[in-house]
Amino acid sequence: MDAISVIRTKRDRGRLGDDQIDWIVDAYTRGEVADEQMSALAMAILLNGMDRGEIARWTAAMIASGERMDFSSLSRPTADKHSTGGVGDKITLPLAPLVAACGAAVPQLSGRGLGHTGGTLDKLESIPGWRALLSNEEMLGVLRDVGCVICAAGDGLAPADKKLYALRDVTGTVEAIPLIASSIMSKKIAEGTGSLVLDVKVGSGAFMKNLDDARELARTMVGLGTDHGVRTVALLTDMSTPLGLTAGNALEVRESVEVLAGGGPADVVELTLALAREMLDAAGLPDADPARALADGSAMDHWRRMIAAQGGDPDAPLPVARERHTLRAETSGVLTRLDAYAVGLAAWRLGAGRARKEDPVQAGAGVEMHAKPGDRVTAGAPLLTLHTDTPERFDYALEALAGDAVEITDTDSFEPVPLILDRIA
Amino acid sequence: MDAISVIRTKRDRGRLGDDQIDWIVDAYTRGEVADEQMSALAMAILLNGMDRGEIARWTAAMIASGERMDFSSLSRPTADKHSTGGVGDKITLPLAPLVAACGAAVPQLSGRGLGHTGGTLDKLESIPGWRALLSNEEMLGVLRDVGCVICAAGDGLAPADKKLYALRDVTGTVEAIPLIASSIMSKKIAEGTGSLVLDVKVGSGAFMKNLDDARELARTMVGLGTDHGVRTVALLTDMSTPLGLTAGNALEVRESVEVLAGGGPADVVELTLALAREMLDAAGLPDADPARALADGSAMDHWRRMIAAQGGDPDAPLPVARERHTLRAETSGVLTRLDAYAVGLAAWRLGAGRARKEDPVQAGAGVEMHAKPGDRVTAGAPLLTLHTDTPERFDYALEALAGDAVEITDTDSFEPVPLILDRIA
Repeated sequence: MDAISVIRTKRDRGRLGDDQIDWIVDAYTRGEVADEQMSALAMAILLNGMDRGEIARWTAAMIASGERMDFSSLSRPTADKHSTGGVGDKITLPLAPLVAACGAAVPQLSGRGLGHTGGTLDKLESIPGWRALLSNEEMLGVLRDVGCVICAAGDGLAPADKKLYALRDVTGTVEAIPLIASSIMSKKIAEGTGSLVLDVKVGSGAFMKNLDDARELARTMVGLGTDHGVRTVALLTDMSTPLGLTAGNALEVRESVEVLAGGGPADVVELTLALAREMLDAAGLPDADPARALADGSAMDHWRRMIAAQGGDPDAPLPVARERHTLRAETSGVLTRLDAYAVGLAAWRLGAGRARKEDPVQAGAGVEMHAKPGDRVTAGAPLLTLHTDTPERFDYALEALAGDAVEITDTDSFEPVPLILDRIA
Repeated sequence: MDAISVIRTKRDRGRLGDDQIDWIVDAYTRGEVADEQMSALAMAILLNGMDRGEIARWTAAMIASGERMDFSSLSRPTADKHSTGGVGDKITLPLAPLVAACGAAVPQLSGRGLGHTGGTLDKLESIPGWRALLSNEEMLGVLRDVGCVICAAGDGLAPADKKLYALRDVTGTVEAIPLIASSIMSKKIAEGTGSLVLDVKVGSGAFMKNLDDARELARTMVGLGTDHGVRTVALLTDMSTPLGLTAGNALEVRESVEVLAGGGPADVVELTLALAREMLDAAGLPDADPARALADGSAMDHWRRMIAAQGGDPDAPLPVARERHTLRAETSGVLTRLDAYAVGLAAWRLGAGRARKEDPVQAGAGVEMHAKPGDRVTAGAPLLTLHTDTPERFDYALEALAGDAVEITDTDSFEPVPLILDRIA
């Protein structure tokens, strides 16, 4: 077996054999296959594809490259959620304690932001004292005591994926559905959750720009989960406009706490409840009532205990950016577009995101929205407030919001895109 | 400018801009673009192609990565030949002194064999004392004194190509027509020859297995040469069966000397004269008579002087392998197939070629043929003689010649493939 023959098979539109996949994933993890060989293979996979059997074997090989976690000692069923990433997507923050309050255990391994999409860990780190890095034992302890935990994945989980993801990031091979699907699912399956709900984002602010690509990715991931004994379901949800009224780290934590307190923007509440329903059904808890857990304060109680268990102070004031700039409506009418990618890019440029993995983020930076598509606005009223510690970034952020990122139309018949576009099980 | 955006352009079937090509070739040569990024780009080029303008710019960027040689101080026109590589292809050996004897200067920068195709330098190194490595000054000196020189390309010529070729070799990206064409032509144009004849091989023993691919490669290279002011013409020639009656280093030198002495196999003589005619025409010497230069001994005289000028002894006995094994005809009939790839592979396995760049070759190893397609053979008569210093290699070499590599048919109507298939100018 050698790397060149594996590359040639996929280059020439062939099907990779099980032995070829097992060998190359293992040899790459051990450093026997060079980065330049794996990146040539990744490009061939991106351009020539893999069938369901190849993707399943590739995922299994990545799982086999590391350790598997085991939650069988818990007395409750486990349920996890994964979002493919979007702008203003803070849903994990209210969702994990909500589902825990309803009786499931939620082991939520999360990531950091890169590019215009935010990262759950970056958001939570704006809470003074909160720690993302837990040992496996600490993680199990929080999960047992509180019922939910949100933390970084350990180094032992799917190391092949960790190495391959870093390579894809610098070689223009991120956007391959077989590689995206196997990357997400290898970590989730190795994590050992019993059920999994996928939130596959579609639109300008997401990796998947159209519904067909998103459906293919969702079907691929649902198939992978099911084949590995994980009850898996996917919702396809709109990411043409940001979720909620904030994009930025501390700004999104504040909005999440509002939802847990029974308030918050309608779309965030709607998606949180829809995903909670799916997770509870998949976990075998059809009688649990997430709307009640929001209303009666038990979700908020789980949030406070989870934050405290990871070293954070749930009562501490959240960081606020030093400078702000308000963008006002130029005309009166209905807000017919507020582009997710543009808002994400602006938030990123204000300091909420990072250009390289090792960059720090500003806790207070981001974009606050005062209207959403479908809302009536009046000329001169505030539309967006930009937050940053470094005001020299305002101009660059405003550039992202120029052109057709924001559109106000004199119309009576505008119908916003529905939030939940499809469900795949 | 960054590597990922260049990779994405080609990945998404776009056209690379001049500035993108200039930047990435230069940055790769300087080590700023990583091997894993260039190999992803090479795979995208292989699968999505480049147009004529992109290939021209890529070639120009590779030329600009190093020095250019200058033969304007010579009193004769320069002519060079390049073969895309085949089995038993020793044509450079008689051709260079023959064309020099007819009045052109032949600066023949040659390579070593890798895989089943032989290398001109490996063949000449079987002559005791002969040196492939010359300084630019030594090379010019031999060219001025003798009229022809065959040596290794210096490190200063198209270093981008040297680095990229080594990368393509280990990443399954050798077989990309734009990259093959720009690799060959960047070295030939940087070398500074005034005219160039390309021998593009077609068939089982060649890189190009079919006539359409070979024509595309030939047209691409002729276009590149012409655009850079080099008078360029290509012959497409058959490589379904080996050239001549020998494949191996010293074996091929012996056959070449026979041709220079006025004898030798008909196909080697035919191709040597055809290529000489094209080189002399391209060099502006239409009245030169290569057949006479073979007959009157002047080509042989140039050969002896060239070998001596590079430290070799033209009268020294050539190395002979210690062991031989004869393969005999199993039936009587007409030899209707003697597969080039099979013979090349057998010669390689006997020790004539190398598996890695740093491996040594056996000077005496190889395959001697006693019949060619179209010849009548009698059951029990010798068909092939295998030569090696290491007889444990015989079985492995014989495996390459099993199956349908050799075919004897009871027929009266077999017509061998013509040697020269097409001409592109």
